[in-house]
Amino acid sequence: MPAMHRLSKIFQPVLVVPKNAVIKHQDVTSKSQRLMVEQGLIRQAGNGTFYILPMLQRSLQKTIALVDSHMQRYAEAEKLTLPTLMSADLWRKSGRLDSAGPELMKTIDRHEKVQILGPTHEESVTALLAAISPVSYRQFPLRVYQITTKFRDEMKPRFGLMRAKEFLMKDMYTFDVGTKEAHETYELVNEAYRRFFDALGVPYVKVSGDSGLMGGSISHEYHFLSEVGEDQLVHCNACGMSFNQEKLTSKSKCEQCHSESIARQTGIEIAHAFILEDKYSKALGAKYLNQTGKPAVLQMGCYGIGITRLIAASIEVLSSEQDIRWPLPIAPFKVCLIPPKKGSKEEPGAGPWLEKMLDEMDRLPALRSDVVVDDRTSLTIGKRLMDARKTGFPVVVVISSKATNVGNELFEVFNMQQGTQVVLGFNETLSEVKRICDSHT
Amino acid sequence: MPAMHRLSKIFQPVLVVPKNAVIKHQDVTSKSQRLMVEQGLIRQAGNGTFYILPMLQRSLQKTIALVDSHMQRYAEAEKLTLPTLMSADLWRKSGRLDSAGPELMKTIDRHEKVQILGPTHEESVTALLAAISPVSYRQFPLRVYQITTKFRDEMKPRFGLMRAKEFLMKDMYTFDVGTKEAHETYELVNEAYRRFFDALGVPYVKVSGDSGLMGGSISHEYHFLSEVGEDQLVHCNACGMSFNQEKLTSKSKCEQCHSESIARQTGIEIAHAFILEDKYSKALGAKYLNQTGKPAVLQMGCYGIGITRLIAASIEVLSSEQDIRWPLPIAPFKVCLIPPKKGSKEEPGAGPWLEKMLDEMDRLPALRSDVVVDDRTSLTIGKRLMDARKTGFPVVVVISSKATNVGNELFEVFNMQQGTQVVLGFNETLSEVKRICDSHT
Repeated sequence: MPAMHRLSKIFQPVLVVPKNAVIKHQDVTSKSQRLMVEQGLIRQAGNGTFYILPMLQRSLQKTIALVDSHMQRYAEAEKLTLPTLMSADLWRKSGRLDSAGPELMKTIDRHEKVQILGPTHEESVTALLAAISPVSYRQFPLRVYQITTKFRDEMKPRFGLMRAKEFLMKDMYTFDVGTKEAHETYELVNEAYRRFFDALGVPYVKVSGDSGLMGGSISHEYHFLSEVGEDQLVHCNACGMSFNQEKLTSKSKCEQCHSESIARQTGIEIAHAFILEDKYSKALGAKYLNQTGKPAVLQMGCYGIGITRLIAASIEVLSSEQDIRWPLPIAPFKVCLIPPKKGSKEEPGAGPWLEKMLDEMDRLPALRSDVVVDDRTSLTIGKRLMDARKTGFPVVVVISSKATNVGNELFEVFNMQQGTQVVLGFNETLSEVKRICDSHT
Repeated sequence: MPAMHRLSKIFQPVLVVPKNAVIKHQDVTSKSQRLMVEQGLIRQAGNGTFYILPMLQRSLQKTIALVDSHMQRYAEAEKLTLPTLMSADLWRKSGRLDSAGPELMKTIDRHEKVQILGPTHEESVTALLAAISPVSYRQFPLRVYQITTKFRDEMKPRFGLMRAKEFLMKDMYTFDVGTKEAHETYELVNEAYRRFFDALGVPYVKVSGDSGLMGGSISHEYHFLSEVGEDQLVHCNACGMSFNQEKLTSKSKCEQCHSESIARQTGIEIAHAFILEDKYSKALGAKYLNQTGKPAVLQMGCYGIGITRLIAASIEVLSSEQDIRWPLPIAPFKVCLIPPKKGSKEEPGAGPWLEKMLDEMDRLPALRSDVVVDDRTSLTIGKRLMDARKTGFPVVVVISSKATNVGNELFEVFNMQQGTQVVLGFNETLSEVKRICDSHT
C-alpha cells in the first residue's frame, strides 16, 4: 500500500465553541477567521499573531509553489532572500524612516543601532544593487523576488490572517535600464499575475491604484470582492475601467471617461504592482553602465502578493457560514476517502476497496500525496462526511454499503466545489475524481 | 527543447577582489564565507546579516526539501509555523527572559508591549499546547516542526552564515505522555537525523552535549569537524564515545570509562537534540488527560538543525581554498553543460549535441531541472570550465572538438566530487552522469 495520509494523525485542534461563550483575546472579526479557528487551521497567539497549523501549512506550501512557478516561468524572475533586519540608516536615505510612521517595527541591537523589521524591501534590494554598481547594461532586465515573513505594527490587527502583524509576502523587485524597458517589465509581471490568479481560480478585479507611500507613478491593485474588504473600489460601467477610490478626485464620476454610471464595490487587496521609477535607485545609488560606458540610474518596479492574506481572503470569498471552500490548487488535500465504520456490516465487503482506490490514485501524478483517508473509523460515515464538508476537501469519495454488491460495486463521489454528488463504479469513480482535479490545473 | 537554465541569466554577482584591497564591513573570517562572497552566493548586508543570492537560494530550497522529507517520513513530524513575535510574558513564565541575556532581540509595539524576536520557540509551542489542554492521551505522541528565520543578537557575528544575527533553523518540538515515551521519541528523531546526515553525505560526529540554557536532561549534538569550529570535542579512543568538552568535569579523561586515551577535535555544531522533560510544559500548563481521565503534564523534547549554517559548514568542510564543493544532494545544479565557443571551428559540428543531451537529461527524473548550461559562449571552454570548477557543479560535461568526429562523437565528463575525468560516447556520457548523481541519493 502506498504511503497514506491519515486524518487521525494530523494535528488539527478543532475548536468547539460553546454557545454564548465569551471569547477573550480571540476577537473573531471575519467569517474566514472564525472558520479557520474552528477547523483547526490557525490559532491566535497574540495580538495580530497566529499559529499556522499543519493542515493550513499544506495549503501554504502549495500556494508558495504556485507563486514560485508563475514568477519564475512567466515573470522570468529569480528567487533570493533579503535580510529581515535592515539598518535604519537605509530607510533614512530613502526618506521613509519618518514617513512610514508607527507601523514600522524596530529593534535596537547591543551596539545601540536601530534595526528595522522589514515590512517591504525596496531599500534593502536597492542597496544590494548599489553595492555591485555599476554593472553593464547587458545584465538587465533583472527581476528578483522573495517569499518571507514581513512585519507591520498594525493599529488594529483584524480579520485573522488578512491583517496581521506578521505575514508572509511575495515581494518582487525589477531593475531596468530605461523607462520604456521598465514599462515592458510592468506588462510582463502583470501578465504573470493574471496567469497566477486565473490558475488560482478565485474571481478578482484589477484596479488602477494609489501609489501612496511607495512613490513612483503607475500602480495597479488586485482585489477579491468581499464585504469585509477595506478598500472602496469604483467600476465605470461606460468605459469598463476600475479604480481604487483613493485614487479618484471626484466621487461621482469616472476619472477616465467622465461617465457618471459607476458601481461601487469593496475589495480585499491581495496584490499590488508599482512602477517606482528612480525614487530608490537615485537615493541609494543603484546604477548601471550604459552603452557608451557612462553610469546611469536604474529604473525600478515592485510587485507584491500577500501570501497568507491571499489564502484567508480566498476562504472568505468562497466559503459558506458553515463550510470552508478552497481554491482547488491550494486545498490542503484534493481528495478525502471515507472507508466504512469499523465493525459495521459493510466493513468486510467494502473495506478492501480503500487499498485498491489508494493504489490507483497513487499512480496519478495529479493526485499522488494529495489524498487523505479519514481513518477515524469509530465514527459513522455520516459524521465524517459532515466533517469533510466543513474542512472543505474538494472531492470526497465514500466507500459505503453500495461497495459490497459483488460485480456491481458503487462509490459515492462528492464534488464539494459544485455541490454535486454521483454514484459510480470503480473505474468511473477514478475518472471522475481525476476530471474534477484536472479541471482546475 | 526543454526549459533550460542558462548561466548567463542567473544573478550571481561574482566579486573580483583586487589584491591588497581593504574590505571594510565585509570582515571575511572563514574560507567558506570568502568563497561564497567571491562566487556570488551571498553578500553581506549589515553586521551579521546577509543577502542569499539566487544560486545559493536553490541550494537552500533543496536543503529544506531534504529536511522536510526526513522529518516527515522518519521522525513522523508535521510541519507548521509558529509566530516570530512572542510576548515577553511567555518568556517570563518560563524563566528565560532574564537568563537568555543580551542575545535576545526585542521590539516594543505601539501599545508598549515587549515582543521577543524568536531565537527558539519552546515557549511558543508549549503555549499552543496549553491553549488546547487538556486533550486525550490518545492524541500523543505529537511531533511538530517549522523551518523559519530565527534571530540572535550575537556579540560577534562571524564566519558568514555560520554565526549570523538572523538564520534559518529547523526546530522540532515533541510531546509525549511519559518519560519512557519521550525517550522513544528521542531515539526516533535521532535516527531520523542519522538518516538525514547520511543522505547529505558530509562526515559528522554525534557527541554527548551540554543542556545549557535549555534545561532538561539528555542532549546530543551533531558536528562537522573543522578548524573554524567553535566547539571543543573530546573523543575517547577506549569506549568510542564523544563529548562536548563543556559537558566534562575532567579535562584529561573520558567521563564514561575513565580512559585517558582521548583525542581532541574542534567541531561546528549543526544540530542538537534535547530531552526537555517538563520544564516548559509545567511552567506554561501544557497537559493531557491520562487513561483515568486525570490531567497530567506533558513530557517534551526539542530538536534543531541550523539550515543556513549547515550549508555554510558543508562548504567550509568540503571546499579547497579556490573551489567550492557541495554535498551532491544540495548543490544548486547537479550538472553543468559547456557547449563550444561561439564562432569556433568545432561549433557547427559539436553545437547540436547540446540540445540532444538536454533532451535526454530532461527524461531522467533525477536530473530534470537540475542541469544548467553555461551559455556564455563568448568565453572559451577553458575559462568556463575553470568557473564551473570554482562554483563546484558536481558534474561538468564539455562538448568540445571531440564531439565533431562523426560516428565517434566523444564528450568530456568531469566528476568534480572525485576530481576525475573521463572521455565517453553519447550514451555512456548519460549513464556516467546518471551514475554520479544517483550514487548519492
